[in-house]
Amino acid sequence: IRQGFPEVILCEGKTPAQVRSIAKSLLKHHRPFLATRATPEVAAVITRLHRRALYHKDARVVAVRDPGVRPVGLVLVVTAGTSDVPVAEEAKITAETMGSRVETLYDVGVAGIHRLLDRRSRLLAARVIIVIAGMDGVLPSVVGGLVSCPVVAVPSSRGYGASFGGVAALLTMLNSCAAGVGVMNIDNGFGAGCLAHRINVLGTDGDDPGRAG
Amino acid sequence: IRQGFPEVILCEGKTPAQVRSIAKSLLKHHRPFLATRATPEVAAVITRLHRRALYHKDARVVAVRDPGVRPVGLVLVVTAGTSDVPVAEEAKITAETMGSRVETLYDVGVAGIHRLLDRRSRLLAARVIIVIAGMDGVLPSVVGGLVSCPVVAVPSSRGYGASFGGVAALLTMLNSCAAGVGVMNIDNGFGAGCLAHRINVLGTDGDDPGRAG
Amino acid sequence: IRQGFPEVILCEGKTPAQVRSIAKSLLKHHRPFLATRATPEVAAVITRLHRRALYHKDARVVAVRDPGVRPVGLVLVVTAGTSDVPVAEEAKITAETMGSRVETLYDVGVAGIHRLLDRRSRLLAARVIIVIAGMDGVLPSVVGGLVSCPVVAVPSSRGYGASFGGVAALLTMLNSCAAGVGVMNIDNGFGAGCLAHRINVLGTDGDDPGRAG
Amino acid sequence: IRQGFPEVILCEGKTPAQVRSIAKSLLKHHRPFLATRATPEVAAVITRLHRRALYHKDARVVAVRDPGVRPVGLVLVVTAGTSDVPVAEEAKITAETMGSRVETLYDVGVAGIHRLLDRRSRLLAARVIIVIAGMDGVLPSVVGGLVSCPVVAVPSSRGYGASFGGVAALLTMLNSCAAGVGVMNIDNGFGAGCLAHRINVLGTDGDDPGRAG
Amino acid sequence: IRQGFPEVILCEGKTPAQVRSIAKSLLKHHRPFLATRATPEVAAVITRLHRRALYHKDARVVAVRDPGVRPVGLVLVVTAGTSDVPVAEEAKITAETMGSRVETLYDVGVAGIHRLLDRRSRLLAARVIIVIAGMDGVLPSVVGGLVSCPVVAVPSSRGYGASFGGVAALLTMLNSCAAGVGVMNIDNGFGAGCLAHRINVLGTDGDDPGRAG
Amino acid sequence: IRQGFPEVILCEGKTPAQVRSIAKSLLKHHRPFLATRATPEVAAVITRLHRRALYHKDARVVAVRDPGVRPVGLVLVVTAGTSDVPVAEEAKITAETMGSRVETLYDVGVAGIHRLLDRRSRLLAARVIIVIAGMDGVLPSVVGGLVSCPVVAVPSSRGYGASFGGVAALLTMLNSCAAGVGVMNIDNGFGAGCLAHRINVLGTDGDDPGRAG
Amino acid sequence: IRQGFPEVILCEGKTPAQVRSIAKSLLKHHRPFLATRATPEVAAVITRLHRRALYHKDARVVAVRDPGVRPVGLVLVVTAGTSDVPVAEEAKITAETMGSRVETLYDVGVAGIHRLLDRRSRLLAARVIIVIAGMDGVLPSVVGGLVSCPVVAVPSSRGYGASFGGVAALLTMLNSCAAGVGVMNIDNGFGAGCLAHRINVLGTDGDDPGRAG
Amino acid sequence: IRQGFPEVILCEGKTPAQVRSIAKSLLKHHRPFLATRATPEVAAVITRLHRRALYHKDARVVAVRDPGVRPVGLVLVVTAGTSDVPVAEEAKITAETMGSRVETLYDVGVAGIHRLLDRRSRLLAARVIIVIAGMDGVLPSVVGGLVSCPVVAVPSSRGYGASFGGVAALLTMLNSCAAGVGVMNIDNGFGAGCLAHRINVLGTDGDDPGRAG
Ligand SMILES: Nc1ncnc2c1ncn2[C@@H]1O[C@H](COP(=O)(O)O)[C@@H](O)[C@H]1O
Ligand SMILES: Nc1ncnc2c1ncn2[C@@H]1O[C@H](COP(=O)(O)O)[C@@H](O)[C@H]1O
Ligand SMILES: Nc1ncnc2c1ncn2[C@@H]1O[C@H](COP(=O)(O)O)[C@@H](O)[C@H]1O
Ligand SMILES: Nc1ncnc2c1ncn2[C@@H]1O[C@H](COP(=O)(O)O)[C@@H](O)[C@H]1O
Ligand SMILES: [Mg+2]
Ligand SMILES: [Mg+2]
Ligand SMILES: [Mg+2]
Ligand SMILES: [Mg+2]
Ligand SMILES: [Mg+2]
Ligand SMILES: [Mg+2]
Ligand SMILES: [Mg+2]
Ligand SMILES: [Mg+2]
Repeated sequence: IRQGFPEVILCEGKTPAQVRSIAKSLLKHHRPFLATRATPEVAAVITRLHRRALYHKDARVVAVRDPGVRPVGLVLVVTAGTSDVPVAEEAKITAETMGSRVETLYDVGVAGIHRLLDRRSRLLAARVIIVIAGMDGVLPSVVGGLVSCPVVAVPSSRGYGASFGGVAALLTMLNSCAAGVGVMNIDNGFGAGCLAHRINVLGTDGDDPGRAG
Repeated sequence: IRQGFPEVILCEGKTPAQVRSIAKSLLKHHRPFLATRATPEVAAVITRLHRRALYHKDARVVAVRDPGVRPVGLVLVVTAGTSDVPVAEEAKITAETMGSRVETLYDVGVAGIHRLLDRRSRLLAARVIIVIAGMDGVLPSVVGGLVSCPVVAVPSSRGYGASFGGVAALLTMLNSCAAGVGVMNIDNGFGAGCLAHRINVLGTDGDDPGRAG
Repeated sequence: IRQGFPEVILCEGKTPAQVRSIAKSLLKHHRPFLATRATPEVAAVITRLHRRALYHKDARVVAVRDPGVRPVGLVLVVTAGTSDVPVAEEAKITAETMGSRVETLYDVGVAGIHRLLDRRSRLLAARVIIVIAGMDGVLPSVVGGLVSCPVVAVPSSRGYGASFGGVAALLTMLNSCAAGVGVMNIDNGFGAGCLAHRINVLGTDGDDPGRAG
Repeated sequence: IRQGFPEVILCEGKTPAQVRSIAKSLLKHHRPFLATRATPEVAAVITRLHRRALYHKDARVVAVRDPGVRPVGLVLVVTAGTSDVPVAEEAKITAETMGSRVETLYDVGVAGIHRLLDRRSRLLAARVIIVIAGMDGVLPSVVGGLVSCPVVAVPSSRGYGASFGGVAALLTMLNSCAAGVGVMNIDNGFGAGCLAHRINVLGTDGDDPGRAG
Repeated sequence: IRQGFPEVILCEGKTPAQVRSIAKSLLKHHRPFLATRATPEVAAVITRLHRRALYHKDARVVAVRDPGVRPVGLVLVVTAGTSDVPVAEEAKITAETMGSRVETLYDVGVAGIHRLLDRRSRLLAARVIIVIAGMDGVLPSVVGGLVSCPVVAVPSSRGYGASFGGVAALLTMLNSCAAGVGVMNIDNGFGAGCLAHRINVLGTDGDDPGRAG
Repeated sequence: IRQGFPEVILCEGKTPAQVRSIAKSLLKHHRPFLATRATPEVAAVITRLHRRALYHKDARVVAVRDPGVRPVGLVLVVTAGTSDVPVAEEAKITAETMGSRVETLYDVGVAGIHRLLDRRSRLLAARVIIVIAGMDGVLPSVVGGLVSCPVVAVPSSRGYGASFGGVAALLTMLNSCAAGVGVMNIDNGFGAGCLAHRINVLGTDGDDPGRAG
Repeated sequence: IRQGFPEVILCEGKTPAQVRSIAKSLLKHHRPFLATRATPEVAAVITRLHRRALYHKDARVVAVRDPGVRPVGLVLVVTAGTSDVPVAEEAKITAETMGSRVETLYDVGVAGIHRLLDRRSRLLAARVIIVIAGMDGVLPSVVGGLVSCPVVAVPSSRGYGASFGGVAALLTMLNSCAAGVGVMNIDNGFGAGCLAHRINVLGTDGDDPGRAG
Repeated sequence: IRQGFPEVILCEGKTPAQVRSIAKSLLKHHRPFLATRATPEVAAVITRLHRRALYHKDARVVAVRDPGVRPVGLVLVVTAGTSDVPVAEEAKITAETMGSRVETLYDVGVAGIHRLLDRRSRLLAARVIIVIAGMDGVLPSVVGGLVSCPVVAVPSSRGYGASFGGVAALLTMLNSCAAGVGVMNIDNGFGAGCLAHRINVLGTDGDDPGRAG
């Protein structure tokens, strides 16, 4: 195995035949498994290979979870709008498949800031928060100003004109005046879920016992 | 006279001799007068030309106000940080010289969002609000979510790295999810003060009586 | 209610089902209502929910107006070309639904500058002017040089090559030598209509009575 | 207090007088304190205000540590080259002042990849790793491929030509094929130190006892 | 000889010694001669080499004209502002040294459009017009809409923020809705003067007798 | 009439109905007429309106020529490759409809530089040369080094990867070391044809008799 | 013949008829022949023209090899991922058709760096190595740190978000800290194969006997 | 030793003390040695450490050559202009120190294309050619069209305006229509010299005897 687990296929840019052949070999050796950016057509190819493989359509992810794993910690996934949900779901399924407990808080963008302020207790309960926002991408800055846990910010490609397919939101997040915000590539729900899980697992039963701490 | 009053010189890119010669001819004909982006050296050249010419060092502006004008309405100038103050002062002197009443609220960035929420009544009292922010430039989105008056957003060049001299803040503001936000060029305090004054004067004594309304 | 009224849905990036569910809950509580960037398919879903919901196809907007509202002030919407009309109509329907009186002046770009100069009296009658232009985006600079009211400039994505989908026009407008020009995101007719309405309403019956002024 | 502790001043863009006045008020109320991007001149102003204030010249940071705090966990700071060291030191002093134990591994860029592979045990011992690289910015991808803990990547502005002041390294890091890498703004050692500390503290004595986990 | 005459040195990026050595060899063989982007220091080096070499300080050009040449045609050089004059003068000296008659019309930007409209007869008298503008760069579009002769547009680097050192003006000009506008590099007064001369000379005594026409 | 003749419609971004309505009114008053970027569908709509309207499919242009006009001067249109031909044909039809004699020299890119050098006499015979090139866009620099007439350079969007849809070629042309090269927007064959005609006509029968020269 | 052999057609941007006509004339005179970026439709047109013309579908190349040529030297083509294979195959067929011996090593990206380190002997056996990578584009830096032969790096357009269609990988490669890496345009497998062959042939039987060495 | 020889220090971004300490340790173990981007001050520090260390001021390089090495093959370094010479000299000293025979051909840009065509035999004699050009960067395309050996293209930062510090030239080179051109970072003479040497040495006495070929 490479870096950590589970084994992952990025389906985008691969033919169904290529995905099938890679998935086949991986599903032999690894229990937990993820295939991201899977179209329904590609998903059908994979789910036929394994009894417990499940297609999460919103997330565009096929996942095989390890049935014996008890979810640890708490990752909170927050979105500014409704259109950010696919990225959020990719993050959620990723972190869950890796072993994290995940909760969500969707459509709480700053245009109606009280929706967010009213949920402050939910923000404070999390060990790590993933915040996804498109257009102006300001939500991670506001969340980052309210909490003291690590924040993983994901720009979404939602928007038009000078949003430049997520670049505006990306720059907002990189320049966040709130400290403690790490940024992912545009629409990279998988990476966010993976980083959040690695953070969330620290000091829990899921952590590496040989590590400092 | 061109568009409105007063007559204005942008000193940047002109030699002191050029500024002097233009200022001399303008100060003959117009009572209110502004020279923006004036270095102390250039300011000295202008203030020598007119008894009531005053150099506002923070704002880098030389202004001659019309002494008989009673300020109208209320423009509020808000900044995210301390380093945005020079741009804010340029906006303030500009709007005041044109005839607006101006108040300020500085250093209320969202990293400490309660500083802003606690002043909500001051935000609500204004006819138009100028919001200046650098780095992530999120403040106008948050202010825009709290008020229903027009908001003029000015990105400042404050920041480093991927702030790209104000471009990140500019994009944030152009993509603001809060409706009713108009955006100015980076560091353009003059333009913001001018636009805010034109908005602020509508329906007051300072307004053009021949206009619809 | 969030910032001001009416409640608005940006349909772009949402499934018809998502739009339907959001629209349903909003149409219960609010009288005026807007759904922007609505395809005919999405519009059909919304108009079925409310008797007075009207689809403005050019503007890609579904609107429910408050029948008792008497339009106030005067917003003038100006375009450089024929292809800018969809953005102009989005701005027009938005401002009208909010309660503004709106007039239009289309296809008066500077390639034939006398078309514009001949209508100067119409420009001077407005309380606020929205100017929409693509390609070189010079029209707001020229209009801004002719009037003293606030100007809201909207770059349109019209053009090709180095127009970069509206970026060239956006930069032209941000750098406008005419003072008093506020800029919106590319193709953001909704935002322009909203800002223009908020400006236009100042000092009229539609304005907040508790405000300074 | 804002989000977490200690209180921090970003000196860049402020006059020594402004820094002094802000520092004075903060040093009254908070014990741990950081002033980043401090020139020697500005540092002298601050160190005169507090007996335990220490200037870390390489890091351009003035810090006041809480003397009773025992460092927890383990943050490892890795650089590709010698010129990345100032950013690394900013990260190190930040995390240490916040309460983390910090170790460093400098000048292990991939041009001589065995320098890195030989230290793999040091990488594996860390709870969280900060990786700083300029020019091609490939080091976080390689480190991320070797470990399973969270990685905080910081592009440095080191380089010339098409490095575009750190943009090339920033893009490399955002696109990292290694999962679990969060990215900071160019040269943002402070933010990296802050995020790494917040991660490192999870599940240690320094963590918030009320949190999930 | 290369393409046409006179021989030209671009001094920028060369040491005074390099310029001297190149100028020396050229001044032997050619009568008309130009050295552009010459600092006073470099100009002094060249003027010492030739009795008729003249330094035009505003234009940063050293020129040796052919005394027997009678200027032909009419090139008009127009600027939007005062700060565009150095580029204009570079264009003027270039075209004059090549043999064109040149007139100028400075500081007629569209913020005060009547300054331009009042001079329409001067625009109509020219065989070719060079228009130089910074910031929004709209002047060539307006001039192009008023005349039917060829227009050479030169963006100047004048401006700040989103003018991006002349890029905004460059894009405006490339996207000009006025037909018949050719664009030069930012601040390229030399190229504009050269192209305008080549156009201006067509059908005059200075033209190549063997050419079609 | 606007600037010069003929009247022109840019069909891109307009519906067939809009094009029809505009074309109808123009074809009443003007004899020469051009409609550019016309799809076959739009072309069919126009050609039905006028007996002499001809669709040039390669050029995507519908043109109505003035039958009594004798072509003057000589415009040469040169392309680097076969894929640049549509832009070249747009330029050709434009200049011809305006009254210029036009010749073409296609597919003479510098990869096989002798194809170009062998045709030097054809280059020298022209009064003005239009050069169209995509990818590296070097052909105008090479042509510009061989001739002394005005050169109009048009970047084409041909290429992939870092050609950025014509931006690479555009920059090459703006930075051309050959003097006397004016640049058009990417793929702007119409503008090139128009500018070339205005240059070509100088000093011929087609020129304005009241002009200097 | 142009520069070297064989003759090559870039099919992208040409109609099947244009490709057919060019291919026909070339296949008459040259034995080795390449048509790149050929769709199946275009490929069918060409293969009908020549008995030995073979379509390599993955590579999108039609090739006619010289049957008598014995492959020389050794070019190794390496990819980071599976999706980079089409570019790799374009490079491979190109170099082989020119006369090089070519081997491949696919899907050895640094996320699993041991896959690469385990094949170090294959890297060391090559005379020149082509490395293709998308997303972060780090593989050429790592390969370049392991070998002392020339490395030709090709960014692929694989990725999403801030990969900007291969720009991120391109910048990584241009800034590579490993010396001796030359970079090609995004997805330019043909150019890479061509350059690698020219390098590979030096000092072999295929080399020009008249050259220095 | 890392990848190949000699050991190299990039002095830019390092203090003289850091350079001294690194140089000291390297000069102990390696005979050939290079320090690039060395200011005179830094050069003085290094030359004091080793008797045979020589400062090449134009190239900004300190080199220690291996006295027993007989130069092999032939690298030709070509520049478009005089201002490209420092980059050319960096490439030359680098390749020479590594063991290549190097010749130069300076100031043969395409504005005077016969200067280049007249030297075609010198181009044909080389095993590998380095071509350096700024501004439009067209020279490598032209050279690449004339030869069949590998070409290493280096964009220089020479130019102004839309040359964007070498980006225009970089893009020209990446998009070169001439096959067999590999591109280096802007101003990267060191990398070019290194790559050219690695190519040049193939099949000579300096080559690795265990390699394929
Ligand atoms: N949606 C995704 N976004 C970014 N990286 C991904 C994604 N899915 C998988 N990956 C990464 O890509 C690698 C698999 O790439 P591949 O070998 O091309 O399937 C995995 O190891 C992950 O680190
Ligand atoms: N700080 C400023 N930023 C942007 N525009 C300005 C500024 N100051 C003055 N202006 C505008 O520039 C015009 C004067 O330009 P000029 O003729 O070059 O002095 C004025 O009419 C203003 O509209
Ligand atoms: N066409 C539009 N362009 C920009 N912003 C819009 C548009 N339509 C709606 N909005 C804004 O988006 C918000 C609704 O977003 P959402 O909740 O995602 O539907 C509204 O409050 C408006 O401020
Ligand atoms: N001028 C240069 N441009 C690019 N890379 C260089 C340059 N000089 C040295 N290098 C590379 O940078 C490495 C040394 O980096 P450093 O350890 O920071 O001194 C060397 O191994 C070279 O590969
Ligand atoms: Mg919403
Ligand atoms: Mg502050
Ligand atoms: Mg029109
Ligand atoms: Mg090093
Ligand atoms: Mg002026
Ligand atoms: Mg061809
Ligand atoms: Mg793979
Ligand atoms: Mg020269």
